[in-house]
Amino acid sequence: MFFIKTIAVLGAGLLGGSIAKAAKARGLCDRISVWSRGESTRAKCSLMPDVFDEICDTPQQAAREADFIFLCTPTDNIPQLANEIVDVLKPSVVVTDVGSVKAKICAECSKIFSGRDAKFIGSHPMAGSEKIGVNFSDENLFAGRVCFVTDSQDASAQDAHKLVSKFWNALGMRVETLSPELHDEVVAKVSHLPHLLSGTLCNFAASFENFDLANVVGPGFRDCTRVSSGSPAIWDSIVADNRVEILSALCAYKAKLDSLIEIVKAEDAVRLAEFLRSAKTFRDRL
Amino acid sequence: MFFIKTIAVLGAGLLGGSIAKAAKARGLCDRISVWSRGESTRAKCSLMPDVFDEICDTPQQAAREADFIFLCTPTDNIPQLANEIVDVLKPSVVVTDVGSVKAKICAECSKIFSGRDAKFIGSHPMAGSEKIGVNFSDENLFAGRVCFVTDSQDASAQDAHKLVSKFWNALGMRVETLSPELHDEVVAKVSHLPHLLSGTLCNFAASFENFDLANVVGPGFRDCTRVSSGSPAIWDSIVADNRVEILSALCAYKAKLDSLIEIVKAEDAVRLAEFLRSAKTFRDRL
Repeated sequence: MFFIKTIAVLGAGLLGGSIAKAAKARGLCDRISVWSRGESTRAKCSLMPDVFDEICDTPQQAAREADFIFLCTPTDNIPQLANEIVDVLKPSVVVTDVGSVKAKICAECSKIFSGRDAKFIGSHPMAGSEKIGVNFSDENLFAGRVCFVTDSQDASAQDAHKLVSKFWNALGMRVETLSPELHDEVVAKVSHLPHLLSGTLCNFAASFENFDLANVVGPGFRDCTRVSSGSPAIWDSIVADNRVEILSALCAYKAKLDSLIEIVKAEDAVRLAEFLRSAKTFRDRL
Repeated sequence: MFFIKTIAVLGAGLLGGSIAKAAKARGLCDRISVWSRGESTRAKCSLMPDVFDEICDTPQQAAREADFIFLCTPTDNIPQLANEIVDVLKPSVVVTDVGSVKAKICAECSKIFSGRDAKFIGSHPMAGSEKIGVNFSDENLFAGRVCFVTDSQDASAQDAHKLVSKFWNALGMRVETLSPELHDEVVAKVSHLPHLLSGTLCNFAASFENFDLANVVGPGFRDCTRVSSGSPAIWDSIVADNRVEILSALCAYKAKLDSLIEIVKAEDAVRLAEFLRSAKTFRDRL
């Protein structure tokens, strides 16, 4: 086991709040300082004194004394936030994030931390929820989920990589280490694509005028579209930051859809059965 | 409240079994006779003596004494099954089904029952599950769900329509009455399309060779694809019986996907935000 004196959480949404609760509940740290951009969010944090020991008005103030820092803002703010705090950090600090894209963030943060003792290692805990905000944070949000941690070419960052991995393990996560680029390709397929397909399905259903489909959807439609209740603000920046891989996944998916349309058009029962069986085989493995 | 002396369930899968359990648990009937094509299914039914009072080797035997009959086989067998039993029915019997396509079934059953005292009314309880078989049947499967019941041009079928609607209401369902044709259009959009999109997503993910995506999927992917674990056999016949509406839904969805691809390609943040917001608005209404 390990113990961290002070954790800083920058950005107190669902993930930041859940990290703080999980760390405190498992006795992984002594203190947690927190900063969040919105004053109302900071006010919510101040109502959680068992979780947050210090509510800070600036990211620098929250980061200054920390030994382990979590950047939990939308992905497009993460490098900028790293840049804002890098000069005030203690030398041995480890910084990670929870952004769901990694290539851009790791490349920019690698420049920002270049030549410093402080180390940045990218993380992406696959444990979101359609619920938004620190009020929904949950100390068990991460249990049983996968966390991606980016590898590092920098030999001096190996200890930081270990610390980050151990932390997620301590929260009950299975850690998969991979390059930022492969991460983005994988996550475009298993997370970003399903989100956009779900949104497309909602918009498709909303456009039907003969009948209010929202009145009659069953559990299948509900499950297929649950993720669409997630925060649009988060997804704006995810799509911007992982555009190339997302486009490639969308186009490859569309090609699969085209071939399904051909099967249905051709009334090809053999290929349809194969389509359904192979889908079930994959799904049953999950 | 109402009471039926004898119910017959023809086809004892998840739905047939759940109807029987729900009717018994709510005291809606005195006896339930059951037939199922597979000998092993009939053997399973014989282990549920509190639910099934008589296990029959032929559909005729199960239907002969019944006052209310549920046809719960895959959709392509339903008219044939209706045809097999129509000559042995008591005069005042009401027959319904649970098939998820209605135009073809209602047209064929309407011919079969034409000029008879026995009445056929189509039903489609939107309460499936990816679980297969009578062993997963659940007396609360229907509670809180929507059931489509087809309208009837036949004035003498109004009492039958009322009985069918009341039965589903008694199981906790909200009944929506519509024409078989509108039903098939609606269900292609809210049920059949999501199922096929989910299968396409599974097959897409299975085809990635650089990384075993099944190892790293999060709850979003799981939810989006849960329905793909459903029985391929059921879906073969659904697609065959609702091909035109399904094709139309697939093509219209693909057009929405094309416009999303254009938005992502064009880095059009305004339209992307609108896409995400309108999807969330629809999903939040469910």
